[in-house]
Amino acid sequence: MGESKKQVGVLGLGWMGAALAGALLGAGHDVVVWNRSPLKAGPLLDRGARLAATPAEVSSADVVLSCLSTYDSQQPVLAAATPKVLVNLTSGTPAQAREVASWAASAGIDYVDGVIMAVPQGIGTAQSRILYSGSPSVFSAQREVLSVLGKPVFLGEDAGLAALYDLALLGIMWSTMAGYLHALALVGTEGVEPSTFTPMALSWHSAVGGFLPGIGAQVASGNYETDVSALDINAAGLGLLVETSRAQGIGFSVPAAVRELFDRAVAAGHGAHAIASVIEEIR
Amino acid sequence: MGESKKQVGVLGLGWMGAALAGALLGAGHDVVVWNRSPLKAGPLLDRGARLAATPAEVSSADVVLSCLSTYDSQQPVLAAATPKVLVNLTSGTPAQAREVASWAASAGIDYVDGVIMAVPQGIGTAQSRILYSGSPSVFSAQREVLSVLGKPVFLGEDAGLAALYDLALLGIMWSTMAGYLHALALVGTEGVEPSTFTPMALSWHSAVGGFLPGIGAQVASGNYETDVSALDINAAGLGLLVETSRAQGIGFSVPAAVRELFDRAVAAGHGAHAIASVIEEIR
Repeated sequence: MGESKKQVGVLGLGWMGAALAGALLGAGHDVVVWNRSPLKAGPLLDRGARLAATPAEVSSADVVLSCLSTYDSQQPVLAAATPKVLVNLTSGTPAQAREVASWAASAGIDYVDGVIMAVPQGIGTAQSRILYSGSPSVFSAQREVLSVLGKPVFLGEDAGLAALYDLALLGIMWSTMAGYLHALALVGTEGVEPSTFTPMALSWHSAVGGFLPGIGAQVASGNYETDVSALDINAAGLGLLVETSRAQGIGFSVPAAVRELFDRAVAAGHGAHAIASVIEEIR
Repeated sequence: MGESKKQVGVLGLGWMGAALAGALLGAGHDVVVWNRSPLKAGPLLDRGARLAATPAEVSSADVVLSCLSTYDSQQPVLAAATPKVLVNLTSGTPAQAREVASWAASAGIDYVDGVIMAVPQGIGTAQSRILYSGSPSVFSAQREVLSVLGKPVFLGEDAGLAALYDLALLGIMWSTMAGYLHALALVGTEGVEPSTFTPMALSWHSAVGGFLPGIGAQVASGNYETDVSALDINAAGLGLLVETSRAQGIGFSVPAAVRELFDRAVAAGHGAHAIASVIEEIR
């Protein structure tokens, strides 16, 4: 890495924190790690990381990444660490991110907030994408070292934006996974194995991805006209899904919630409109 | 089409029925159409279709496709049409499909049930996939003409299987769309436009697709161990999503239902397990 080699502190060695530290070591950076339980650091120390006995021992690092389990557990750690430059990768709400940004500003700490759209095993690969918000100049200054972790995407100056995108994107994931698990349970009632159903589910998942840009464009324009699929047909279909789930003896709380949302949009007059019109009942 | 040219009846000319008839005409088949309101047939008649004044007038067709809005509206139409070979593409439940299959058997009608995993505009393209179940021999005999509509996939002899897959797959779609619309509403509270958010959502949607086979494999094995992402972290994240949605002033009924499902799985002892373990709370 030559002159771009940096001393990087990593606070928190859960699966994700350990993956971050590992990727930084792999790129030749000087990595100092701290974790509440120092035992977790073992494999990283074998690869050349140094162990900080206290959060304060990372304060001299060029940049400190924080990846703790919650903002509550992070707060005293950051207060003790007093980093020069802080990249906050702990998951939380936009309000929590903005609060830490204010604290950092008052403490004279350069600050950027980030969220990791990857699993730990994806860190350092081309599939890893990390979203940042906060100070553009701090982001620019740290861009090279952050690129080691995954493709960095800067969203804007509001420190809360990365957390907002994170929750929005994770919400899509949780919703999709709940739908997929429901589907597996439903076909499972007739003895259909996941290995039989999943190839079809994947092909369909990909087709559904193709529908999303059109939905986004309708939301942007507010024009919900459709000649593809009207909301009332889909709401009726959700009724059949709930009815069939009940008949097959499985739970249906998530489909029932989606149905209730769609039904409300139909009741509000969107029956002949596209599914995109459902957003009017969310916002 | 030469000797494989067939006379095909199409009952129901909604967007989908009209698309089916159009694709059959395009492939050179002799198409006879019936619709409750004959006005809808106009564009198809211009392309060479014949109009049946009553359902009974399609009874001599080699094969009849039924694509009506509901099973309730379909029942008297089928009773009047008495086709020789019936391909039932009306959307419904597995129980409804089996009931029509029984009726067809008692009336001496060759029967196969099908569900269309495509939008009307996709009919006749490589993206269109149609799932069938029921009599394997009837499916084989009609495979060539059905291939005009989209790639045919035969699921098994249980006439209800196609409807079961249909609802399962549509459930994934509805869940994903509800998640995407919630995400658009959430980032929209901070002025982020769909055109800004959607490219990231699409890339993430594709990444989420990559997680599904692993979840399916865990469901199949019942081994929910993970070193990727534990359920309790995801349940906590859903709590943050609900909290942030409330703080930003948007609805959150669907994320709250997913959270409640995940929380139940955590309470049942799956906190350290993978998200796949949630299926234990569905079935």
